Amino acid sequence: MNYPNRIVKTYKNPLSHKNRGMDLEDEINLSNDYYLEKDIALIFKKPTPIGVTNVSYSPKGKIIERAYFKEPSTLDYNGLYRGKYIEFEAKVTQNKTSFPLANIHAHQIKHIESVLKHQGIVFLLIKMNDIVYLLKGDDFLNYKNTHERKSIDYDFIKEMGFVIPYGLTPPLDYLRTVNYIYFKEDIYGEIETT
Amino acid sequence: MNYPNRIVKTYKNPLSHKNRGMDLEDEINLSNDYYLEKDIALIFKKPTPIGVTNVSYSPKGKIIERAYFKEPSTLDYNGLYRGKYIEFEAKVTQNKTSFPLANIHAHQIKHIESVLKHQGIVFLLIKMNDIVYLLKGDDFLNYKNTHERKSIDYDFIKEMGFVIPYGLTPPLDYLRTVNYIYFKEDIYGEIETT
Repeated sequence: MNYPNRIVKTYKNPLSHKNRGMDLEDEINLSNDYYLEKDIALIFKKPTPIGVTNVSYSPKGKIIERAYFKEPSTLDYNGLYRGKYIEFEAKVTQNKTSFPLANIHAHQIKHIESVLKHQGIVFLLIKMNDIVYLLKGDDFLNYKNTHERKSIDYDFIKEMGFVIPYGLTPPLDYLRTVNYIYFKEDIYGEIETT
Repeated sequence: MNYPNRIVKTYKNPLSHKNRGMDLEDEINLSNDYYLEKDIALIFKKPTPIGVTNVSYSPKGKIIERAYFKEPSTLDYNGLYRGKYIEFEAKVTQNKTSFPLANIHAHQIKHIESVLKHQGIVFLLIKMNDIVYLLKGDDFLNYKNTHERKSIDYDFIKEMGFVIPYGLTPPLDYLRTVNYIYFKEDIYGEIETT
């Protein structure tokens, strides 16, 4: 498992997701609110794109009377952190042994390739067996390009993914893991100074 | 006027917006499609955030039966270009002498400050008197912070803004202007080599 240096010690008793009654999206949104409030990063969930088929007008403004959700061609979250463009997708699977690739659309896979090519930071946050893993975009693509399977084996995620420890505020401090992976920062050292 | 070096010669007869029947948003979206297709940049319009109050279910999926548009707290467009985070807002005014500041919400102004602080590229594209100007985020904030007025004088926009010349494909090649401003690139030189 690609556990960042000594981080296990730091978060000895990560709260389990089950006990907290929060889903992954809430955990990420709360963490992003925290990053925004503390002026650490500007990361937002993109609104799901919709196609509006019917509107009406009220004194308060335009009201959508009928619309449908479109398939996204980019990832769920994007933003700016330490001068870098960052984008990621968050997915939960109840499957305990493999992550179904159907979770990521073809357009999104192409988009991951593009973000890498244009020197952005891109990854997946995968919640599986009550653990959240950060799987780097290039590791994801490598797997996808070298395997015929329609899912990613859990062993691969355990081997290549970085565990994001649970905390209280923020609930899911994934940027600390991003510091470790993308900014070559010693997580333990950084914890000591903050 | 902050006209980039010699660019006037290059685009001698910019097509007027009036003649083309396209609005600024279309022009930007088409340009972004071009950048995406040519693998130059990944820049998308963010979907307008909505609040859904009623849904129904069809065999094709969830349908929104009632929703309203929320006020955005970030800018219209964001993405990744040459390894940098880029974000901007596009606004048209019919006013010929000044740009009303009511066009930019308080949340958005705070967001512009944040993007600058986190080392992103941020600007406004303002269409006024049939000309599209790129006004840098810091110039916009400087004006806002040093003037009591509720609008930006057109003279200021002419002085500090960079004119984006109209073309055919893409209709509005604002990234060439971004190259000039943020990547210190000689636009004329770049035109010669492409």
